[in-house]
Amino acid sequence: MVRFIKRISKKAGLPPGTLVHIGEKKAETVRIRLMDYTPDHLEERDLSAVEECFPYRDKDSVTWINVDGIHQVDLMEKLGSHFGLHPLVLEDILNTDQRPKLEDYEDYLFLILKMITYDEAQKRLHVEQVGLIVGARFVLSFQESEGDVFEPVRERLRKGKGRIRKGGLDYLAYALVDAVVDNYFLVLEKIGEDIEELEEAVIGKPAPETVESIHNLKRELLFLRKSVWPLREAVAGLEKGGSSLIQEKTVLYLRDVYDHTIQVIDTIETFRDMVSGMMDAYLSGLSNRMNEVMKVLTIIATLFIPLTFIAGVYGMNFKVMPELEWHYGYGLVWLLMILVTLLMLHYFRKKKWL
Amino acid sequence: MVRFIKRISKKAGLPPGTLVHIGEKKAETVRIRLMDYTPDHLEERDLSAVEECFPYRDKDSVTWINVDGIHQVDLMEKLGSHFGLHPLVLEDILNTDQRPKLEDYEDYLFLILKMITYDEAQKRLHVEQVGLIVGARFVLSFQESEGDVFEPVRERLRKGKGRIRKGGLDYLAYALVDAVVDNYFLVLEKIGEDIEELEEAVIGKPAPETVESIHNLKRELLFLRKSVWPLREAVAGLEKGGSSLIQEKTVLYLRDVYDHTIQVIDTIETFRDMVSGMMDAYLSGLSNRMNEVMKVLTIIATLFIPLTFIAGVYGMNFKVMPELEWHYGYGLVWLLMILVTLLMLHYFRKKKWL
Amino acid sequence: MVRFIKRISKKAGLPPGTLVHIGEKKAETVRIRLMDYTPDHLEERDLSAVEECFPYRDKDSVTWINVDGIHQVDLMEKLGSHFGLHPLVLEDILNTDQRPKLEDYEDYLFLILKMITYDEAQKRLHVEQVGLIVGARFVLSFQESEGDVFEPVRERLRKGKGRIRKGGLDYLAYALVDAVVDNYFLVLEKIGEDIEELEEAVIGKPAPETVESIHNLKRELLFLRKSVWPLREAVAGLEKGGSSLIQEKTVLYLRDVYDHTIQVIDTIETFRDMVSGMMDAYLSGLSNRMNEVMKVLTIIATLFIPLTFIAGVYGMNFKVMPELEWHYGYGLVWLLMILVTLLMLHYFRKKKWL
Amino acid sequence: MVRFIKRISKKAGLPPGTLVHIGEKKAETVRIRLMDYTPDHLEERDLSAVEECFPYRDKDSVTWINVDGIHQVDLMEKLGSHFGLHPLVLEDILNTDQRPKLEDYEDYLFLILKMITYDEAQKRLHVEQVGLIVGARFVLSFQESEGDVFEPVRERLRKGKGRIRKGGLDYLAYALVDAVVDNYFLVLEKIGEDIEELEEAVIGKPAPETVESIHNLKRELLFLRKSVWPLREAVAGLEKGGSSLIQEKTVLYLRDVYDHTIQVIDTIETFRDMVSGMMDAYLSGLSNRMNEVMKVLTIIATLFIPLTFIAGVYGMNFKVMPELEWHYGYGLVWLLMILVTLLMLHYFRKKKWL
Amino acid sequence: MVRFIKRISKKAGLPPGTLVHIGEKKAETVRIRLMDYTPDHLEERDLSAVEECFPYRDKDSVTWINVDGIHQVDLMEKLGSHFGLHPLVLEDILNTDQRPKLEDYEDYLFLILKMITYDEAQKRLHVEQVGLIVGARFVLSFQESEGDVFEPVRERLRKGKGRIRKGGLDYLAYALVDAVVDNYFLVLEKIGEDIEELEEAVIGKPAPETVESIHNLKRELLFLRKSVWPLREAVAGLEKGGSSLIQEKTVLYLRDVYDHTIQVIDTIETFRDMVSGMMDAYLSGLSNRMNEVMKVLTIIATLFIPLTFIAGVYGMNFKVMPELEWHYGYGLVWLLMILVTLLMLHYFRKKKWL
Repeated sequence: MVRFIKRISKKAGLPPGTLVHIGEKKAETVRIRLMDYTPDHLEERDLSAVEECFPYRDKDSVTWINVDGIHQVDLMEKLGSHFGLHPLVLEDILNTDQRPKLEDYEDYLFLILKMITYDEAQKRLHVEQVGLIVGARFVLSFQESEGDVFEPVRERLRKGKGRIRKGGLDYLAYALVDAVVDNYFLVLEKIGEDIEELEEAVIGKPAPETVESIHNLKRELLFLRKSVWPLREAVAGLEKGGSSLIQEKTVLYLRDVYDHTIQVIDTIETFRDMVSGMMDAYLSGLSNRMNEVMKVLTIIATLFIPLTFIAGVYGMNFKVMPELEWHYGYGLVWLLMILVTLLMLHYFRKKKWL
Repeated sequence: MVRFIKRISKKAGLPPGTLVHIGEKKAETVRIRLMDYTPDHLEERDLSAVEECFPYRDKDSVTWINVDGIHQVDLMEKLGSHFGLHPLVLEDILNTDQRPKLEDYEDYLFLILKMITYDEAQKRLHVEQVGLIVGARFVLSFQESEGDVFEPVRERLRKGKGRIRKGGLDYLAYALVDAVVDNYFLVLEKIGEDIEELEEAVIGKPAPETVESIHNLKRELLFLRKSVWPLREAVAGLEKGGSSLIQEKTVLYLRDVYDHTIQVIDTIETFRDMVSGMMDAYLSGLSNRMNEVMKVLTIIATLFIPLTFIAGVYGMNFKVMPELEWHYGYGLVWLLMILVTLLMLHYFRKKKWL
Repeated sequence: MVRFIKRISKKAGLPPGTLVHIGEKKAETVRIRLMDYTPDHLEERDLSAVEECFPYRDKDSVTWINVDGIHQVDLMEKLGSHFGLHPLVLEDILNTDQRPKLEDYEDYLFLILKMITYDEAQKRLHVEQVGLIVGARFVLSFQESEGDVFEPVRERLRKGKGRIRKGGLDYLAYALVDAVVDNYFLVLEKIGEDIEELEEAVIGKPAPETVESIHNLKRELLFLRKSVWPLREAVAGLEKGGSSLIQEKTVLYLRDVYDHTIQVIDTIETFRDMVSGMMDAYLSGLSNRMNEVMKVLTIIATLFIPLTFIAGVYGMNFKVMPELEWHYGYGLVWLLMILVTLLMLHYFRKKKWL
Repeated sequence: MVRFIKRISKKAGLPPGTLVHIGEKKAETVRIRLMDYTPDHLEERDLSAVEECFPYRDKDSVTWINVDGIHQVDLMEKLGSHFGLHPLVLEDILNTDQRPKLEDYEDYLFLILKMITYDEAQKRLHVEQVGLIVGARFVLSFQESEGDVFEPVRERLRKGKGRIRKGGLDYLAYALVDAVVDNYFLVLEKIGEDIEELEEAVIGKPAPETVESIHNLKRELLFLRKSVWPLREAVAGLEKGGSSLIQEKTVLYLRDVYDHTIQVIDTIETFRDMVSGMMDAYLSGLSNRMNEVMKVLTIIATLFIPLTFIAGVYGMNFKVMPELEWHYGYGLVWLLMILVTLLMLHYFRKKKWL
Repeated sequence: MVRFIKRISKKAGLPPGTLVHIGEKKAETVRIRLMDYTPDHLEERDLSAVEECFPYRDKDSVTWINVDGIHQVDLMEKLGSHFGLHPLVLEDILNTDQRPKLEDYEDYLFLILKMITYDEAQKRLHVEQVGLIVGARFVLSFQESEGDVFEPVRERLRKGKGRIRKGGLDYLAYALVDAVVDNYFLVLEKIGEDIEELEEAVIGKPAPETVESIHNLKRELLFLRKSVWPLREAVAGLEKGGSSLIQEKTVLYLRDVYDHTIQVIDTIETFRDMVSGMMDAYLSGLSNRMNEVMKVLTIIATLFIPLTFIAGVYGMNFKVMPELEWHYGYGLVWLLMILVTLLMLHYFRKKKWL
C-alpha cells in the first residue's frame, strides 16, 4: 500500500516550495555524473562536489548532469538555484510520489518519469522516480538511487554511434525518455510470462494459491497502470506542445516514443482484461468441482440410505416379525435391496448424473 | 446516509436567495477572526461583533476574515450585504450540502470546498464545508465549526515566512485551497493503512466481519470521491479561468494544486479498484473453503455409508442367514469392508481429492 | 414496466402533429388557472372556458396559464392555435412518454419536465409530465392532473414577496423549474432513508425479502435516473442557449438550478453505487452463512458417522465374534469411540473449523 | 448468430462495387411500386418492368419508387445506372448486413435503416434492411421483402391529408424514417411486456427456464441495440448535415425523429439494465433457496445423527453391557435422546436457523 | 501470451532506427514480387535480387513491390535506403509487435495492418503484420511470410477488370487495405459459428469443457480487438488526413473501408457481450443443477434419517422394552414410519420441492 500513497505527513502545512524529501532514502551517498559532448568530443566525469558542474551551464556543448540520490536537500537547493529552477520544480523532484507529467517553464521543460523494474522472485514492481530538466544548454536528470536504464544511452554517447552525439539536447532528452519506455516492454514481457504460467495453472490444476497470485497480479497491474497512464499525456505534450526547445526533426522520434507508450498502455489494459477473465474462469472451475463433489456425495448417500433403512428394519427385535421367520426372508430382502438400487441408478441415469 | 443527502425539506418552496442553514449546527457560538496584513505588518484580531470587520473592506492591505459557524443567519446576512455578496452565494454558503465548485461573480470569486477528516476509531469520514470568497481586497472564509486545516497558513502569516505576506490576495486564496487539498493526502494515507490491514486479513484469515469492513470502506471511498471529484473542475477554473483577480505568477502555484487534486482523485480510483478486488478475493477464498469443507464431508460420508450398510445387513435378525453361521463370517466381513474402503480411497485419489 | 415505455400503439402510423393523448387519464375534468401580474398588481382566476384566457395573450403584464389535465384534445388544440404553438409541440405535450428536453422555437421556449413523487408505502415513484411554454408575454404550463409542486410559487406571487413579481416571464419560468428540481431533493431524501434502513437490514439480519427490496430500489433509481438525467442538458440549454427570452440577470439563477440538477444526478449515481454495493454485501453475507451451516453439518456428520459404524459392527449377529465375548469389550468400544472423536476434534481444530 | 454476422464469404475478394446480394432471399418476385404526386394530384402504379419508372426521374412532381426484393442484381443495376447511383451505394443496398448510416453524395442522400418486428411466439426480433435514396426529384426505397411499415404513409398520400402532399421530397423521406422509428416503439412495448412478465416470474416462482428467457432477452436487446444505436448518428446527420436537399422547415420534423431515436436508445439501455438486474435477482433468489434447503438438511441430519448413534450403541451385542440389564435402561435412553434433541434445538434457535 | 507481447529484449537499449527483426521467422527465404502497370499494360515478375526493382522507383507507371519475409535485415536496409524510407519506418516494419497505425511522412504514407486468419481446429487466431508504403510512384508491401489475402487484388490487376488498373497508386493502396478488412469478416463468420455452437452447448448440456471454450473465445476476441481497434483511426486518417497522395475520388472508397472497419469493431464488441453473457448463463445453469442435486439429497436424507432412527431404536437390546413384546408392535412401527413419511412429503410439497 505504501507504494500507492506515500507518507507526506511530514510535509503537510509547510509553505509551497519548501524542499522536503518524500520517499525512501534509497541511496547512501549522492553521486553526480556529468557528460559533456559535441559531435566530435566527449567529456565524462564523476563530480565530487556539486559546484564542479556549475561552469558547464553556459557552455555551448551539450551537458548532461545525472544525480543519483535526491535526499540531500541542500545539494539539490544549490543545483536548483544555479540552474534557475523554480522552487515548485525542485519540490516535485524531491517528492517521489508524483504522477508522470510534463511542465513547460519556457526556459526549460520539466518531466517526471517512472523507472520500473519487476522483481521476479517476489512478483512485485519496483518504481524509481526520475526528474528530467531539459534546458537550452543542459539536461539534468535526478534519480532516487544508482543503477538505471540509461546505461545504453551513455554507451552510445561514448561510442559516438548513431545520431546521438549530433542530435542536440532535445535528442538526448528523447533518448532518455525512450530508454525508460523501452524498459516497460521488458517489464511487460515478464508479467506476460507470469500471466501465461498462471493461465495454465487456472485451467490445469487450480489451487487456493492461484487466487492469491491472480489477486497479486491484478494489484501490480493496477500499480503499473497508475505509473504509466499519465505518461501518455506527458509524451504527447513533448511531441505536440510546440516548445521552442524541441527541434522539428526530433518530433518524429517523439512520435515513435508516443506510439510505444500507447502500446504499453494497450498491453496493460489487455493484461488486466485477461487477469480478470482468469478470475472468472477460476471461480467457475471451482463451482464445477464443487458440483461434482456434491453429485458423488448425493449418489452414494441416496443409494445407501434406503438400503441401510431396510437393514435397520430387519434388525429390530420385535417378538412378532413374520418376515424374519420366512425361510427365504433373507434372500427376499437382498432382492428388494437390489431392486431399490436398480431403480435409483435408473433415476440417476435419467437425470444425467451418471 | 444522512451524509449523502441532507434534509433540505425545511427549505423546499422558499424563494431563491432565502437564507436557511442546512446541516448540523456544529458550533455553539460564532467566532470571527480577522487577519490583516501587508508585507511588513500583520494585525490579528478576534472580533466580538461582525460590524468590526466592516472598515477593513476598503483597506489596501490584504484582509482575511474567517467565520467559524454559519448557523446565525442574521450575522451572515449583515456580512453578505456589507461585502456585496449575491443572495445565491450566501444561500450556498449556508447550505452545507453543496458540491465543490467555483463561480466567478466578476467582483469576486466564490469557491466551495470540503474539509475532510478521517475518524480512525469509527473508520468514518467527517466533512466540513468551507465557503471562500476572494474579492479584490479581502478574502472571506466560512466554516461550519472551529478547528480547521488553515492553522499552518496562519502560522506562516504570523512568521512572515515564505512568499505568503508578499503574495497578495490570490496567493492567500491559493494557500487556503492548498491546505485543504494537502489534508486529503493525510486522509488517504490513513485509508491506505486501513486497506493494507484489510488486505492482509482477506488473504490471511478472512472472517465475516471482513465483508462488513470492505463494504464500509467502499462506502467511505464513494463518499470521499463525491466530495473531491468536482473539486478538480473548480481548481482548473481557478487556474485557467482567466479571472482578473488571479495574478499571472500565482497560476504556477494553482497548477501545482491542480496536480495534487488529480493525484488525489487518481488515488481514490486506485483505492476503489483495490477494495473491489479485495471483495472478489474474499469471495473466492470463501468458495475455496466451502469446497474443502464439502470434500471432507463427502469423503467421510462416502467411506462410511457403505460400511455401515454392510454392518446393518448382518445386524438383521432373520432366522435363516447362512453367513452368520460361517466360522470365518466375521473375518470375511472385515475383509469386505477393508476392500470397499481401499476401492473408495483409490477412487478419491483418481479424482485428486486426496 | 408500463412506466418505462407507454402504450403508443394507438398512435403509430398517424401523421406527425396529430394530437393523441398518450398516458393515463389522471384527471377527470380539466382545470385552467390563470395568474396575471405586474409588480404592483395580481389577478388570479379559475377559468371555466379556455377562451377566457385568450385576451391575456397580448397584455404587457406577465400571464401564467396553468392547465391541469391534458386529455381533452380539442381544448388543447384551441389553446395551441391561439398561442401559436407548433403542432409538434402540442403533440409532445400530449404524449406523456417524453424525455425532459428544451426546444427553442424562437417565439417561445418549450420545456418538458418530470414532476416526481415517492409513494413511501409502496416504495414506488410516481411521475407526472409537465410541459412548459415560455413566450414573450405568457407562460403556459400543462400538467397531467391537479396537485403539483408549484403551490409555493403561487404563494410567493400572491404575497408579492421576493423578486418574483418584478422578475418577468423568464424569472417565473425559472421559479417553476426550480420548484420541480427542489422537489427531487425531497424524493432523494426519502429514498436515502430507505437505503439507510435497507443497509442496516443487510448487515444486521438479511432475509430473502431484502433482495426484493434491493432489486426494487435499483429499479426505482433506474427510473428516476431516466427521468432526471436528460434534464441536465435542458437546463444547461436554458442557461447557455442565448435565447433572447432569457434576461442576463436570470442566468445566475439558472446556473443555480443547473448546479442543483447536477447534484441530483450525482446523488442518484451515488445511490446506485450504494445499492449495488449492498447487493454484493448481501450475497457475500449469504455465502458466509451457508458456509457456516455447511461446517456445522460436516462436523456433526463427520463426528458421528464413524461412531455409528463402530456401533453397527458390534450390532452384527455373527455366531463367532470374539470381541463380543470379552469381558471389557463394551468398555473398550467406548474407549475406541472416544479416541476417534478426539482425533476428529483435533483435525477440525487444525483446519480452524472450531 | 447468423443474425449478428452474415455470410459474406461469397463476396470476399471481389472488386468494390461488384453487386452481390448478401442475405436471405426473402421475396420470390420483385415488386416495384410507384407513387408520383403533387399537392393536387396522385398517381399510384405497380410496375411490371423496371424501365417504366425511368421517365419519372426528371418530372417535377415528387416520385417515390419502392422496390420490394433486392435479390435481382441485374434489375438493381439498371435502376442504379439510370438514377445515377454510385456503385458503392448499390453494393451497400444489396448487402443486408450494413449498419444504419447516412451518406451524402451531394446529388442525393443515401440512408440505411433497419425495419424491426418482434415475433412474440418465438420471442425473436426480425430485421429487414431498408435502403433509402433521397434525390432532388425522386425518393427510392429498397426493401428485402413485401410487407412494411410504410403503409400508413401511403394511406396519407392517397388521402392527401396533412402536410405530406405539400411537403416535398425531404418531407416524404422524413415520413418514411419516422414510420420506421415509430415502429421501434411497438417493438419496445412488446419487449417491455415480456420483461414485466419475466420480472414477476423471477420474484414469484423462478424456474430454470427463467434463466434461459433472461439470457434470450439479453441477446435480443443486444441485437436491437446494434440495429438502432448507429441510427442516431444518421438522423442527426440528416438534421444537422446541412444538405441542400433538406428544406429549413423540415428540420423541425427531423429533430422530432431524432428525439424519438434518442428515446428508443434510452429505453433499450434501461431495458438492458433491468434485464441484467433480473439476472442478479434470480441468482440471489437461487442462493437463498439453496441456503434454505441446506438448512433443512442440516437441521434434520444434525438432530437425528446423534440419536441414531445412541440407538446403535444399545443395539450392540456385547455379552457384558450393564445398561441393557437395568430396569429403566430403555426409559433412560429415551430421556437422553430427548435431552440431546432439546440441546440441539436450543443451539439452532441461538443460530437463528429456526 | 507470446501473442500479446513479443520478446523485444534483444532490442532494448539499441539506438532508435537500429534494424532488428522482432517476431518469429515465418518464412525461410525472402520472396520479392513486382507488379508494374498502366491502364493498358502489366508486367509481373519474381525478383531474384532486390536491386532489380530499383529502376522502377522513378517510372511513371504504378509499381507494387511485395516482400514476403522481413527477417533479412540487410535486404530491408537496401530497399529502405533506395526508396528513401525513414529509419524509424524500417524499424517499425521489422518489429512485428506494432499496433495498426498510419503515419504521414509527406513523401509517402506508412501503414501498419494486421492480416488475421482463424485456425478452426485449434480455435486460435493467427496474425501476420503487413507494412504498407504508399509513395508517389510505388507501393511497397512487407509481409512476414508467403500466402496472403492479396491474391484477389493481383487477379484483378492481371485481368485488368474494374477500375483497379486505372485507379492509380492510392486506389491500389485502398484495394490492399480493403482486402485485409474484408478478410476480417471471414474470421468473424467463423468465430460467429463457434459462438453459436457454444451457445447451444451452454443451454443444452453444459460440461466443464464449456468454461474452457468460453474462456478461450474470450481471449481470442480480446486479441482480435487489440489487432483491429486501432485500425479505425488509421483508416480514418487515410480518409480525412488530406494527404496529397490520396485523390479526391478515392476518398469515397476509403469511406467504405472505414464503414467496414466500424462494422468489424461493432461485431467484435457484440461478440464480447454475447460471450460474457454466455458465461453468466453457464454459471447460473450450474447453480441450478447444484440446487437440484442438493434438493434430491435433502429429500432422500430427510425422508430416511428419521425412519432409520426409529428402526435403530427397536434394534436396541434392552432387557425391558415393552413395545417389543406387543403383538402388533411391528405393525404399529410400520404405521408410525408411514405417518412420518407422509408428514415429510406434505412438508416438501408445501416448500414446493416436489
